[in-house]
Amino acid sequence: MEKNDISILGAGLIGSLLSIYLKKRGLDVSLYEKREDNRKSQYKEEGRSINMALSDRGWKALEKIGLKDKIMPLAIPMYGRKVHDEHGKTTFMPYGKDNQAIYSISRGRFNRVLIDEAEKEGVKMNFGHRCDYINLHKNEMHFAVGFEKNRVFSNIIIGADGAYSALRMAMQKQGRFNYKQEYISHGYKELTIPATPNGEFAMDPNALHIWPRGKFMLIALPNPDKSFTCTLFLPFEGTKVCFDKINDKQDVIGVFKTYFDDAYQVMPNLAEEFLRNPTSALINIECYPWVQDKALLIGDASHAMVPFYGQGMNCGFEDCFILDSLIDKYGTTAWDLIFAKFQKNRKPDTDAICQLALENFTEMRDAVADPKFIIRKKIEAKLHSLYPKDWIPLYTMVTFSDMPYSEAYAQGKLQESIMDKVMSNPLITQNWDKLDYGDIIDQMDAAKAV
Amino acid sequence: MEKNDISILGAGLIGSLLSIYLKKRGLDVSLYEKREDNRKSQYKEEGRSINMALSDRGWKALEKIGLKDKIMPLAIPMYGRKVHDEHGKTTFMPYGKDNQAIYSISRGRFNRVLIDEAEKEGVKMNFGHRCDYINLHKNEMHFAVGFEKNRVFSNIIIGADGAYSALRMAMQKQGRFNYKQEYISHGYKELTIPATPNGEFAMDPNALHIWPRGKFMLIALPNPDKSFTCTLFLPFEGTKVCFDKINDKQDVIGVFKTYFDDAYQVMPNLAEEFLRNPTSALINIECYPWVQDKALLIGDASHAMVPFYGQGMNCGFEDCFILDSLIDKYGTTAWDLIFAKFQKNRKPDTDAICQLALENFTEMRDAVADPKFIIRKKIEAKLHSLYPKDWIPLYTMVTFSDMPYSEAYAQGKLQESIMDKVMSNPLITQNWDKLDYGDIIDQMDAAKAV
Repeated sequence: MEKNDISILGAGLIGSLLSIYLKKRGLDVSLYEKREDNRKSQYKEEGRSINMALSDRGWKALEKIGLKDKIMPLAIPMYGRKVHDEHGKTTFMPYGKDNQAIYSISRGRFNRVLIDEAEKEGVKMNFGHRCDYINLHKNEMHFAVGFEKNRVFSNIIIGADGAYSALRMAMQKQGRFNYKQEYISHGYKELTIPATPNGEFAMDPNALHIWPRGKFMLIALPNPDKSFTCTLFLPFEGTKVCFDKINDKQDVIGVFKTYFDDAYQVMPNLAEEFLRNPTSALINIECYPWVQDKALLIGDASHAMVPFYGQGMNCGFEDCFILDSLIDKYGTTAWDLIFAKFQKNRKPDTDAICQLALENFTEMRDAVADPKFIIRKKIEAKLHSLYPKDWIPLYTMVTFSDMPYSEAYAQGKLQESIMDKVMSNPLITQNWDKLDYGDIIDQMDAAKAV
Repeated sequence: MEKNDISILGAGLIGSLLSIYLKKRGLDVSLYEKREDNRKSQYKEEGRSINMALSDRGWKALEKIGLKDKIMPLAIPMYGRKVHDEHGKTTFMPYGKDNQAIYSISRGRFNRVLIDEAEKEGVKMNFGHRCDYINLHKNEMHFAVGFEKNRVFSNIIIGADGAYSALRMAMQKQGRFNYKQEYISHGYKELTIPATPNGEFAMDPNALHIWPRGKFMLIALPNPDKSFTCTLFLPFEGTKVCFDKINDKQDVIGVFKTYFDDAYQVMPNLAEEFLRNPTSALINIECYPWVQDKALLIGDASHAMVPFYGQGMNCGFEDCFILDSLIDKYGTTAWDLIFAKFQKNRKPDTDAICQLALENFTEMRDAVADPKFIIRKKIEAKLHSLYPKDWIPLYTMVTFSDMPYSEAYAQGKLQESIMDKVMSNPLITQNWDKLDYGDIIDQMDAAKAV
């Protein structure tokens, strides 16, 4: 039986990054990935959502180990949402202040760079290793490697193996493991807007494009090759426009011409892609504890969230950063203490971002199309510019700060209740710019004092 | 490979009863149980909670297939709660009207009778069959039988295999299966009050005894051998009185002398039992869908609840009754339709009883010790006697009726809000008997009309 010090399951974004963090401390780190090493072949990333939106929490985690400058050239800044209405008219809504952006990056390319870095640092890479069984009491893992079995003992096991985590399945069989998996009623399908015939972006590349249509929506994020990756979110069944009712080329074109005509005009391969690509489901996972004996869950394995706040990867990276900060404090041997502190401190924050991600779906597919929503965002932006410390919009707290998610959530709920009152003014559309902004801040202070 | 028409996993109370229901229709029914046939040996039921409280829904399901009269002699009626305070003083609180009772029955004995009946009807019994793998698309199950493997194909698979259901685990690996398992902070341990030296019950046998102590409690249910089975519910850790802090004989006796002295006086084997018996956890499970292809979950497999409303078995029996009523309506071949209707109609009801069971824990361990709670129950009983159709106490709706649980839940919440108002009267203790009862009913009607 092989013996490891630290074994990480999953060489996705979180597992790779964590392996670099731990290896840089001089620890013995082995990384296990069920897929083959895709760096050798042309990576196939068709049909699964491949664009991530890197924001402040993610950058901060990359910066701490000196990777920010290496990743930045791969990323395209998006400074706001560009909302497309049914007639193709667009409205730009900045995400934050002028220089604040989230960054579109290809998951596959990003992952390859992180794996290269991990290998360079001396992490032991094990591709094509499918974890079949874990004995948590004996710290023992069994891997299927082709037709062989490989038994591995490890002092520490960290599961960065995603929403369908093998480590979490093992924990679920233990007593007193709380677990929830919840699929939302919508699925998604990936599509493409290719570069134009003259090799240009078909739309503004520095925005996240949204076609909000109430119960469903289309979004598009830019790629360095001047294409956009689009994701269509529809209910699986039971409504007028749903995946169940789109079964042939005509259905596809019918829906796109009716609801997304300006996008349709720049999607030459739409129907083929639609019919070929899989329809995927969206899951929310919450569980606790994350620690059993010497094993820890991290990233999606412990808190898979729906993609509507663009925080899944950023939150997983922040997991790595926080775990590493605890190692800074307690050293590389006090794993019991570090794991206990990690799960206790971190759990309320991941609960908060899971919840925010669920709630933001309604905002993206519905609210952003409402003229009043735009006014609301303008009032909040103005409050923030007048009182930068007293009123930070929720999106800014989540995306452009490292405030704990749970705190952002609580502040966001307070702001929401105050803004609901502000927006109930029937003349708000006309006189939003002339409001008593100081009074709104006073209300916020009063609410906080309760 | 063996071929079955209908296979039921689990020969517990629900699986056995369901097998009788289906066999009586002339269907080919096979029952698989991972345990050995315990009818041959002396059944060991030590240390796991073995008293069930049969109430109306359970009796109704037994009656439909002619088993009520056979089971009744095994059961001891309990007409109310007998609440023990710290000084051993008891207060009797009836569950309903004079003749209304819930019935204490030994799980093991009850199960043996049902298995005998199933066998008599011609159900094919397969003990010592542990289900290791299920392929839902191929309707194929693999069983470990000793050191052999047994592959079985079945047109229909029904999982009555409890909280740790193998069928549910197979479903969980499919897409879009929503699942939640949640352990409460308390565990339980089983203890005994034996018959007195002269062979009598040590306390009133026709009551469910409760020692409510705020954050924890002890309960006791009578057995035909004149003993009581006691269950101690304590937090696992983190409070003054918790399982973590009871580690030796002295600790046990200390807690019992302080909090349950009258019970302690009649528990000669307390410390030995306490230290020998396991501490078990309490789980709540909710999931959906219950149906995949030709497989259906039933009973605890689909909705394991905490034991505080005494409805787990009754609810599972009602599952059987309702499934059978759908077969009455649609025949023995329309399984797709029957399963679809069953899960759709039944799910809101099992959600409701799971929730009520969680909420009732607070009532049992805390509220029943409050003199105001007794007044509250008296007011509700009087309302019920004056207006038997307009005000049925929640406990009565759940326990002594077959009203859908979800309806009982909704009515109960309305009643609760009205009773909260009634109880806020500062003179309620003195004048509860002279209230304007008609006005309370009017408030209820007004609330319902909203």
